Amino acid sequence: MSDQTLGTTTVTQVGIIVRDIETKARAWADVLGLPIPEIIITDTVDLAHTEYQGEATPAQAKLAFFHLGQVDLELIEPIGGPSTWKDQLDQHGESLHHIAFFIKGMKEKVAYLEAKDIPLVQRGDYTGGRYAYLDGTARLGTILELLEND
Amino acid sequence: MSDQTLGTTTVTQVGIIVRDIETKARAWADVLGLPIPEIIITDTVDLAHTEYQGEATPAQAKLAFFHLGQVDLELIEPIGGPSTWKDQLDQHGESLHHIAFFIKGMKEKVAYLEAKDIPLVQRGDYTGGRYAYLDGTARLGTILELLEND
Repeated sequence: MSDQTLGTTTVTQVGIIVRDIETKARAWADVLGLPIPEIIITDTVDLAHTEYQGEATPAQAKLAFFHLGQVDLELIEPIGGPSTWKDQLDQHGESLHHIAFFIKGMKEKVAYLEAKDIPLVQRGDYTGGRYAYLDGTARLGTILELLEND
Repeated sequence: MSDQTLGTTTVTQVGIIVRDIETKARAWADVLGLPIPEIIITDTVDLAHTEYQGEATPAQAKLAFFHLGQVDLELIEPIGGPSTWKDQLDQHGESLHHIAFFIKGMKEKVAYLEAKDIPLVQRGDYTGGRYAYLDGTARLGTILELLEND
């Protein structure tokens, strides 16, 4: 597909905001009959270059992943400063947060969505790639995450 | 897997509650570069046997589906009486509502989850099958939907 679309229609991840990731990871493992996953912590702002609403933020998150076929279920416990993760927990409690797509060309795809009134709210880097959250609530009914691996 | 687990680890559907399904379906089609899907209306209570919190309810919903690989994205506009769909719209606005799994043996799987403090909140039939929503918010951070086709 061209740069005039998102370039993918494959949902790769569903994210859930939780208050207590250890408890929730155990409960999911129990319900699904799967091993309890490792819990990791996102990089600090000096490495992740995390930006929320255009400003650097010390926000981090604890993450745990269940690989459920095509889709990863991502548990996210917000820690630290302002973030879309913390907003969701404060405003809606523990709840589904986003669906994610792997894309190519982060800058162009963010611009594509912003031109459709789906604004960037948070971005950052991880080892081997980068992510962006765009607030599609008004237009699509959910936050989107774009993921790009090198 | 035995009846002692959910019997599947494959996410088959992600549901989004919306206020205006025609507008949202057009927006998703535009972002994804896909055709605008047909909008259907769930059966009335006499056919669907819809129950919310153990009582018959005249609730219905308008539905639209995007087939995104393994996962269907389901847009849901609640209409009519009390439902988990209406609860979500009233309490959280337009937002992600559930993730769904296809299972075999609805009665046993609902009992399996209820025994884990994940209570049934709504159930009903559709042509060729049946569904149940279980409120996993406290235990898992989200509502689950079980789907069973004949």
